[in-house]
Amino acid sequence: MKIIELLTWRYATKKMDPSRPVPQDKVDRIVEAARLAPTSSGLQPFEIISVTNPAVRVQIREIAWNQAQITDCSHLLVFAAWDNYTAERINHMFDYTNEVRGLRNEDWENYRQQLLNTYPNRPAEVNFQHAARQAYIAFSAAVIAAAEEHVDATPMEGFDPNKLDDILGLRSRGLRSAVMLPLGYRQADGDWLVNLTKVRRPREQFVTEVR
Amino acid sequence: MKIIELLTWRYATKKMDPSRPVPQDKVDRIVEAARLAPTSSGLQPFEIISVTNPAVRVQIREIAWNQAQITDCSHLLVFAAWDNYTAERINHMFDYTNEVRGLRNEDWENYRQQLLNTYPNRPAEVNFQHAARQAYIAFSAAVIAAAEEHVDATPMEGFDPNKLDDILGLRSRGLRSAVMLPLGYRQADGDWLVNLTKVRRPREQFVTEVR
Repeated sequence: MKIIELLTWRYATKKMDPSRPVPQDKVDRIVEAARLAPTSSGLQPFEIISVTNPAVRVQIREIAWNQAQITDCSHLLVFAAWDNYTAERINHMFDYTNEVRGLRNEDWENYRQQLLNTYPNRPAEVNFQHAARQAYIAFSAAVIAAAEEHVDATPMEGFDPNKLDDILGLRSRGLRSAVMLPLGYRQADGDWLVNLTKVRRPREQFVTEVR
Repeated sequence: MKIIELLTWRYATKKMDPSRPVPQDKVDRIVEAARLAPTSSGLQPFEIISVTNPAVRVQIREIAWNQAQITDCSHLLVFAAWDNYTAERINHMFDYTNEVRGLRNEDWENYRQQLLNTYPNRPAEVNFQHAARQAYIAFSAAVIAAAEEHVDATPMEGFDPNKLDDILGLRSRGLRSAVMLPLGYRQADGDWLVNLTKVRRPREQFVTEVR
């Protein structure tokens, strides 16, 4: 299917079938789409935590408005962004890039210095917000890739991020949770949204042309 | 092509061919993918401004590190997020949803009240940051859709957002620029990035499993 068809097919699944696991190769391709997504300066300032452990998911559900998809889904993907940009993190990615490409490029090194001179000096919160936006780029790629796999998913921001960070031990890893994506298969007979029309603002209220 | 192949094919194009316009039907499908992307509570708190006007693009280039793609590209898409969540904006989307679906749902109305009781009371900056994240979801869908159309694109955050808001008159429309996406066709012989290996963190540094 084309991207537009995939986006039309998908919906924020409200009821997952707890008896249907998503095959691991599908999950792997969904995660791979997120890994390949573009990010600012190629820093990829986030990680994915894939939660299948039932007890952990019970805990997460408790700090996420009791949303049933968290425990009914097959894999719960948590997108967690860097809590800050540090010189170490920036250097790691630039060094790794040089290693993979087998070259050092003067413009690229100048660009590294520009980042090193700006990012680590900004407040951590500014950097986290920037990193979280990058996580959303990958999150969106994962949403579309899930649809391509005919896997249902539920974009989910309704949780207490600080408590989720505690449950998953994210802060000690320099991460903060940004958004979650339960993956699974819809249980249509318990899903109030499945048969409702997808609503989007009309095109003329969405795009303006400056000719 | 599959999503993973599209993400592998695309790259942040550094040199666009100014003589090759992107057919409007391709631009329309790219924008349509952005319009169909999921957003928090379905509010779609952003708009796209498609800039083709040459003089305006010269102005934008001046406040965007003189990046040549801005004037060399075919269409410059600017993703601009709501500067705030207001009761009016929330009600507009909930009313429109009821109108399209031809029904009023008690749970949905309760959810509307929950948003009305929280979002408008938060600082505008918090709301803008949240809206900008939603814009990034749509932005990512547009990046992937462009690849599907074999259209090159350059994710671009390197600009002065306040000055871009002034140039496009966004603030009076309740919008603030978040990210740009020039669309066009690569001019490979002037593009330092086109032949370099795409670098992404290895999978084992990107995803963790909690089993």
